[in-house]
Amino acid sequence: MKNTVAILEKPGKMVIKETQMPTPKDDEVLIEVKYVGICGSDVHGFEHGPYIPPKDPNQVIGLGHECSGIIKKIGKNVRKFKVGQRVCIEPGVPCYTCEFCLSGHYNICPNVDFMATQPNYRGALTNYLTHPEAMTFHLPENMSLIEGALVEPAAVGIHAAKMAGDLLGKSVVILGAGCIGLMTLQACKLKGAAKIVMIDILDNRLNKAIELGATATLKGNDPQLTEKVKSIVGEYGADVVLETAGSIFTAEKALEVVKRRGKILIVGSIAGGVPVEFLKINREVTIQTVFRYANDFPATIDSIANGDFDVDSIADRFFNYQDTQKAFEFSVNNKKELIKGVIKVAD
Amino acid sequence: MKNTVAILEKPGKMVIKETQMPTPKDDEVLIEVKYVGICGSDVHGFEHGPYIPPKDPNQVIGLGHECSGIIKKIGKNVRKFKVGQRVCIEPGVPCYTCEFCLSGHYNICPNVDFMATQPNYRGALTNYLTHPEAMTFHLPENMSLIEGALVEPAAVGIHAAKMAGDLLGKSVVILGAGCIGLMTLQACKLKGAAKIVMIDILDNRLNKAIELGATATLKGNDPQLTEKVKSIVGEYGADVVLETAGSIFTAEKALEVVKRRGKILIVGSIAGGVPVEFLKINREVTIQTVFRYANDFPATIDSIANGDFDVDSIADRFFNYQDTQKAFEFSVNNKKELIKGVIKVAD
Amino acid sequence: MKNTVAILEKPGKMVIKETQMPTPKDDEVLIEVKYVGICGSDVHGFEHGPYIPPKDPNQVIGLGHECSGIIKKIGKNVRKFKVGQRVCIEPGVPCYTCEFCLSGHYNICPNVDFMATQPNYRGALTNYLTHPEAMTFHLPENMSLIEGALVEPAAVGIHAAKMAGDLLGKSVVILGAGCIGLMTLQACKLKGAAKIVMIDILDNRLNKAIELGATATLKGNDPQLTEKVKSIVGEYGADVVLETAGSIFTAEKALEVVKRRGKILIVGSIAGGVPVEFLKINREVTIQTVFRYANDFPATIDSIANGDFDVDSIADRFFNYQDTQKAFEFSVNNKKELIKGVIKVAD
Amino acid sequence: MKNTVAILEKPGKMVIKETQMPTPKDDEVLIEVKYVGICGSDVHGFEHGPYIPPKDPNQVIGLGHECSGIIKKIGKNVRKFKVGQRVCIEPGVPCYTCEFCLSGHYNICPNVDFMATQPNYRGALTNYLTHPEAMTFHLPENMSLIEGALVEPAAVGIHAAKMAGDLLGKSVVILGAGCIGLMTLQACKLKGAAKIVMIDILDNRLNKAIELGATATLKGNDPQLTEKVKSIVGEYGADVVLETAGSIFTAEKALEVVKRRGKILIVGSIAGGVPVEFLKINREVTIQTVFRYANDFPATIDSIANGDFDVDSIADRFFNYQDTQKAFEFSVNNKKELIKGVIKVAD
Repeated sequence: MKNTVAILEKPGKMVIKETQMPTPKDDEVLIEVKYVGICGSDVHGFEHGPYIPPKDPNQVIGLGHECSGIIKKIGKNVRKFKVGQRVCIEPGVPCYTCEFCLSGHYNICPNVDFMATQPNYRGALTNYLTHPEAMTFHLPENMSLIEGALVEPAAVGIHAAKMAGDLLGKSVVILGAGCIGLMTLQACKLKGAAKIVMIDILDNRLNKAIELGATATLKGNDPQLTEKVKSIVGEYGADVVLETAGSIFTAEKALEVVKRRGKILIVGSIAGGVPVEFLKINREVTIQTVFRYANDFPATIDSIANGDFDVDSIADRFFNYQDTQKAFEFSVNNKKELIKGVIKVAD
Repeated sequence: MKNTVAILEKPGKMVIKETQMPTPKDDEVLIEVKYVGICGSDVHGFEHGPYIPPKDPNQVIGLGHECSGIIKKIGKNVRKFKVGQRVCIEPGVPCYTCEFCLSGHYNICPNVDFMATQPNYRGALTNYLTHPEAMTFHLPENMSLIEGALVEPAAVGIHAAKMAGDLLGKSVVILGAGCIGLMTLQACKLKGAAKIVMIDILDNRLNKAIELGATATLKGNDPQLTEKVKSIVGEYGADVVLETAGSIFTAEKALEVVKRRGKILIVGSIAGGVPVEFLKINREVTIQTVFRYANDFPATIDSIANGDFDVDSIADRFFNYQDTQKAFEFSVNNKKELIKGVIKVAD
Repeated sequence: MKNTVAILEKPGKMVIKETQMPTPKDDEVLIEVKYVGICGSDVHGFEHGPYIPPKDPNQVIGLGHECSGIIKKIGKNVRKFKVGQRVCIEPGVPCYTCEFCLSGHYNICPNVDFMATQPNYRGALTNYLTHPEAMTFHLPENMSLIEGALVEPAAVGIHAAKMAGDLLGKSVVILGAGCIGLMTLQACKLKGAAKIVMIDILDNRLNKAIELGATATLKGNDPQLTEKVKSIVGEYGADVVLETAGSIFTAEKALEVVKRRGKILIVGSIAGGVPVEFLKINREVTIQTVFRYANDFPATIDSIANGDFDVDSIADRFFNYQDTQKAFEFSVNNKKELIKGVIKVAD
Repeated sequence: MKNTVAILEKPGKMVIKETQMPTPKDDEVLIEVKYVGICGSDVHGFEHGPYIPPKDPNQVIGLGHECSGIIKKIGKNVRKFKVGQRVCIEPGVPCYTCEFCLSGHYNICPNVDFMATQPNYRGALTNYLTHPEAMTFHLPENMSLIEGALVEPAAVGIHAAKMAGDLLGKSVVILGAGCIGLMTLQACKLKGAAKIVMIDILDNRLNKAIELGATATLKGNDPQLTEKVKSIVGEYGADVVLETAGSIFTAEKALEVVKRRGKILIVGSIAGGVPVEFLKINREVTIQTVFRYANDFPATIDSIANGDFDVDSIADRFFNYQDTQKAFEFSVNNKKELIKGVIKVAD
């Protein structure tokens, strides 16, 4: 067995190099990587370098954190897995013992080692990697390894929908119908939302939203956007608004369409300051930022396996591992057309 | 227009008599009743008289509280309705101003006037009745008046599922697959439960449960019941257990199959004392009684209208209003075969 | 019995005029007003007219909504009260039947009739007023009528602290040490907050905060404000931050000192847009606006009566009803020195 | 440095024996034990052997898990502590990575290693012990080592009060005024409960309850107990009822005095089945078992250090380590008089 890893040599340049075969610690498994999804943060990293530059200028930087594969070895304390089993991984390894971990919010652990970012910048685009048993999950028989690689972005949607609280019979507006918006749509449907309005500026995404069960779609540049949303969800606005587009404009729209006592969830990363007029949302509106996921992989996997959550139809482009450079170039050049690319590392 | 009402003359004897045409108050509507579902509590009332006997021995006792109809008149302050609209009603009229009402739990209002029970024992089995605008609800165009009469028992399931909290990806056990059990099953599915195990002793009910989406069914008299449940939901038991069968035996089973930190919801009315060994459920298990519903009709109606909640296939027997006596006799004599009877009061 | 009312003739001019003696409806009481607290919104109304101008240009505009008094008459359905009892009132009368009222959030009822604002602009500065039994509350024997008039602003603090969730052992930062900030401080202490840092620019207010139990105080214009807060509450910031000062500057500080998964509550009315950089608070921080109170008067009254909540020492200036004009002029001219003025309407 | 440990040779017989000096692992500290509180479970263990007998008949069984001491050595990854610092310990070491740990409920971790019980039966009655950094806590300067040993039982009360939810202005009934009842009383007061009724059959305990701030006390054998409770807390009963006495009788009383939508928390260990008549508590009452504590030590320590929680006056008898046998004999023979004994292991 030989191992290679795809490295970001400099912005715009990925190279595949030989690297050491890692050895699992007692509570770790060794995984042969099969599929890796390309996240928007990977594309950003490819173009501009990591959001948070490494402190060490010699730090090797990998990309990719949406990953499925096969167990190849297990550490001596591992109980959940056997060699040969198909798995996907949760890419953040928390410290387990800080106040945030101990209270169930390990996603905001300040000491987390998350793939392709601080502190270790280890990427999933490699042939073999080690990972803790606790952050590795079985794929049911009826789930493919491609679906396995898409559990991670699906879990972002699941987590956002969980943070939205009770959705049964509620009205939801989702701003942005990219990969995360479409995952969030499905998670909200799965929780029984009665009406889900998807907003985007791209028709291909809105069409996909309708396919996946949106009640209605609206163009983000519609001058009557707020009025049209209210004509669908009711005069007081939507119970829950999920911002997944990452722009100041959409965040401002979120503030306009939310109901009294409603909830806005900021799922996307918004650069810059959003002017929030609190007097306009002073009837006990909540705004909450959403960060990754915690304890969400089991529910995500079960929902996909049950057929209640369609990740397959969101992945619309596949690349081979040896074409990683081309995969990223394509992703940069086709941001509007592409919803989700996936790299096949091995069969 | 002439009005009649079906009266419980004595246990086992319903008679239809002429009665006054009621006049809606300023905030009330006058409804022509179309369909009325027969609830287990109605059957019990028919057989034995009301659970809570009236204080006044001359009290006229009606039956029925699951009701749809048509608006015939509106009070002068009514804004939501017009004459001719199709509606269903929420049968409890709370006081609105006690501490329970003001904090959102009007279902436990000590002053509530609930149909067919204290204090007024007014039944839905009548041609015309008045009801407050606030407790009357529009039926969407694609919902039938029969479905309208079934909103009430569906709302019991919706309320139970809401009280269960987050169900996304969770495992659920439902004891009892009668009308309320099947409604609860659908409500739990609607909230994204990953696994739902239905338990009953009657095959016809378990078959219906499978039709409506149960993951698995088990016979209540299976000597390996607890083990079989755990083989499906996992070694620690189910996240949520809903008791809808109303027996001490099923309540005891609920205690055996619930997970650490899991929740048991007592939806059914259990006569007698259930011996609870708290040491066996001492890992922060919650038991909560569930009472009717509050603020649940809109979500219930939307879910039925969206096609996400099938009430039609639960109603398996129809009767005419003039045959009310026969309808109740049939219900008494066919408790096992019958899941849900409905009386057609008018076309 | 003769009745008068203090009317805002025009901005800057209050006049006392004779008015009709009101008659309580069946569910109302007639109250002889004794004390009325002067709220910041009253002072704003005196200076500039109401925040929300009346639609009818001939609308008579009263001021005052923090009010205690004596029951003089009761409507025929009133059960809780007898003539002669001492009471305070909750100044917003909700509709009781909209979706917000029915779900326990009557404070955000769109149809609310709140004193000194829409739709009726009736003020508490009058000799006699009627009010619904449900929004009127007994004063315990050991509570004075002055304390009764201060229940309303205390309830704002109680409501904010309730919306903060669990505070036991938590760290709290309160921006603004005016009347509402000091009430909020006491409510947070009452819920077991371990550390409470008060921030203001006025020393007299910060001194009062220390008297009332603040752990530490900081000047709002301290250039090292954020660092100093963190040196007290811990490196990750405060669990809960309450903005009561109503300025963009303090709202921005709130964003800087809140912890991962922490909660910012916007209690004050902030004019203009606060630039919120969501990337800087992206670890699941919550921002929620707080509006008045709901179901909070009983807890507030009990806490004052128990001696756990000191409202007396917050009221620092008293005026007579006939000097209402002077009272408002003084309030306008001494905004920094004055914490809370109270008008004695009758002994 | 020499180490000894107090061992339960057989029921009724503790002996102190030499034992190995333990070496801290990388994430552990070595602690010189100073004070150890005697818990009811220790007394039960002394009399009858452990609740859960060890599987290995040769298992050495220690007692004691309420423990303070001084840091003597630190493992190489320890960051929070220095040699010489005063600490107390949380006696359960969870696995950190099971589903219960990862979701913040490590107290119900099935793999927990809790002192003086499964799987290792290591007791705090020893001179030196090792413990993970994450489950070790600094004592503030103004807290004594005796108070440090009492943090554990205080945390039981804090945890129970946290599980009770919002207590501000609420009415509380606590059944049992032993050590845990008195700790729970203080925790409920700290959260702003307006009325706390303590019930016990022993006057010395009820007197202590009054000293520590109970609103009222009642004798558990009072034939009018339920009526008297309701005359204090209101006709509908208490918002929250905490059962700490561990008897079927008191658990049945809890069911009688709880309010609609109220909460019963089972804090004590009740042997046998409590007959629960769900029809009598069918207005959405919650019963929840409470197990130890999780994430509660910091709040407990801060509350004691702030002077808001008095543990000193609960400890009413002190013993020396060499008299461990006598300490347990005294505890067995004086169950009614004694509230809390503490063993001084070293100065």
